[in-house]
Amino acid sequence: MLNPKLKSRGLPKNAKKDIPKLAEDVLSGNISALSRAITLAESSRNEDRQLRSDLIKRLFPHSGKSYRLGITGVPGVGKSTFIEAFGLAAIQSGYKPAVLSIDPSSSRSGGSILGDKTRMNELSLHPKAYVRPSASGLHLGGVARSTRESIMLCEAAGYDLIIVETVGVGQSEIEALQLTDFFLLLMLAGAGDELQGIKRGIMETADAILITKADGDNIALANNAAQEYRRALHLMPPHEGNWIPKVATSSSLNKLGMDKALQWMKQYHTLCTENGYWLEKRSRQALYWFEQNIQSQTLQLLRANPEFKQMMDTTRTQVEALKTDPFQAVDEVVSRIAFEIKK
Amino acid sequence: MLNPKLKSRGLPKNAKKDIPKLAEDVLSGNISALSRAITLAESSRNEDRQLRSDLIKRLFPHSGKSYRLGITGVPGVGKSTFIEAFGLAAIQSGYKPAVLSIDPSSSRSGGSILGDKTRMNELSLHPKAYVRPSASGLHLGGVARSTRESIMLCEAAGYDLIIVETVGVGQSEIEALQLTDFFLLLMLAGAGDELQGIKRGIMETADAILITKADGDNIALANNAAQEYRRALHLMPPHEGNWIPKVATSSSLNKLGMDKALQWMKQYHTLCTENGYWLEKRSRQALYWFEQNIQSQTLQLLRANPEFKQMMDTTRTQVEALKTDPFQAVDEVVSRIAFEIKK
Repeated sequence: MLNPKLKSRGLPKNAKKDIPKLAEDVLSGNISALSRAITLAESSRNEDRQLRSDLIKRLFPHSGKSYRLGITGVPGVGKSTFIEAFGLAAIQSGYKPAVLSIDPSSSRSGGSILGDKTRMNELSLHPKAYVRPSASGLHLGGVARSTRESIMLCEAAGYDLIIVETVGVGQSEIEALQLTDFFLLLMLAGAGDELQGIKRGIMETADAILITKADGDNIALANNAAQEYRRALHLMPPHEGNWIPKVATSSSLNKLGMDKALQWMKQYHTLCTENGYWLEKRSRQALYWFEQNIQSQTLQLLRANPEFKQMMDTTRTQVEALKTDPFQAVDEVVSRIAFEIKK
Repeated sequence: MLNPKLKSRGLPKNAKKDIPKLAEDVLSGNISALSRAITLAESSRNEDRQLRSDLIKRLFPHSGKSYRLGITGVPGVGKSTFIEAFGLAAIQSGYKPAVLSIDPSSSRSGGSILGDKTRMNELSLHPKAYVRPSASGLHLGGVARSTRESIMLCEAAGYDLIIVETVGVGQSEIEALQLTDFFLLLMLAGAGDELQGIKRGIMETADAILITKADGDNIALANNAAQEYRRALHLMPPHEGNWIPKVATSSSLNKLGMDKALQWMKQYHTLCTENGYWLEKRSRQALYWFEQNIQSQTLQLLRANPEFKQMMDTTRTQVEALKTDPFQAVDEVVSRIAFEIKK
């Protein structure tokens, strides 16, 4: 039986048919409409594809005007409490924040979706904020697309600071980097880079590092760690856009470090709009997703063709039985593919 | 002006037209025909594609009956001197060895091709051996195909031990693993795994490790290293096919360790033909190359189409200018592609 909590996240049947109305409601800032729109963006059902496409096409002109912030860090670094404190500080400074997460490994039950939502209790109840629980059961490869579309939907709904939190390490960070303007890395003092599962590559791409939990007995340790990372980052070449990565300590408990992060973000925005890197980076990200996706979609199109599938099955059997050379087999298969570009 | 030594490696114009004759000459064990056939397999010229394909089709039924041995190790480990000594020992024990190399980074001059050939002086002059200098100027991605086809050509010419030597580290080893039956890793004592540029993953895939240069003052050091690797490998799960990787020392100077390696290879062959893994592995390798290649060839076919290219250029400009969403753009591009499978 379906978990009723999961079921309630689905899109009502009649809402599906009225995409113009849904788009209008999202634009007016209706939170329930936004949630339904994101559910549609996350859907991998074939019958939702056209609807999703219609919706995005309508809302695309209203997107792009927010500050897209990526936040990452290993479990235990205090990401949720940081984002809660940071989001509230951002509201104070005039932002309307939305929180999304990239979690490709997630297969949460209905119960933990609820748990996830109540994680950022104060922020998610705030009328100026929107916290989206992480999506469950997303297709691998569909995560980036649905996250990117969710960002656009939040922007269309009037949110001007989109926080993309990554859960898990590795691929998620690479995707977050290609989806956001500024990348903030949270680290623990004294845990060692390796223990934190942070690859050197990720540290090098961070625009800023905050050492979390700099409170009580932990302050001196956190200061030392900050000093160390500052030195390490100084040895690296400056980022594209001429930005020099920043390092500081933070305490979600004492609400310290949030204003500093907001200040860095503003400095970054000023620098990079002046030197043109802000839009250049967004262009490059768009091209990145375009090139990535064109390959997988083309192959998917081909694989969906029953004649191709049959030809592949037959050939694969031959190759597996060592009756034909694999490269020759590819030549033969490819020589039978003809395609046409429709006007 | 063309280097005359390089020119002499090319295929004579008239030979190109007579593929049935070339195939016959290869089958009769004619070394000069074999060399010309491999040159054809290495060619990336469009006009050679059909000829190469014809040749491989003719010789495929005569291939597959050799022992395919992969040998790797960083520069300085003494690969060439080892292969020379090992090849001569293999001849003693009844084999007809051929030596090929995978060297994707190679861009050697005519001079060093000559140098390369004289590397294994005694072996390359032996009437029962064939040593192929590493190919220069091969297209990235074409290396695996040409190596695999060269293996088949050597087999058709009657060689029953094909030694595939990898030059350089990284991708080459992964390719060699998918081309050979048994994988021998050469290591230096005392240099440390990391100094040797050997990734842990490569060590885990080795079917046997030989510690080279175990002669003179170096014997104790080599024995210690062997002991250490033996312990390390014991902690790892046994290989597929139930083979337990072996470790010993070797000295190319004193011709020690070669017979041991030959003995392991025989043990491996006996074990894996009995449990069926020998053919299973070859099937899997064939499927690996088939799946890898079908993707890149299909995309290449598509990219060669001028209408597709034009559509891509237009769309890319739109995406770069942030005038359309990259995922939507992909949908639109892909929706205009129609495939047909010819009978």
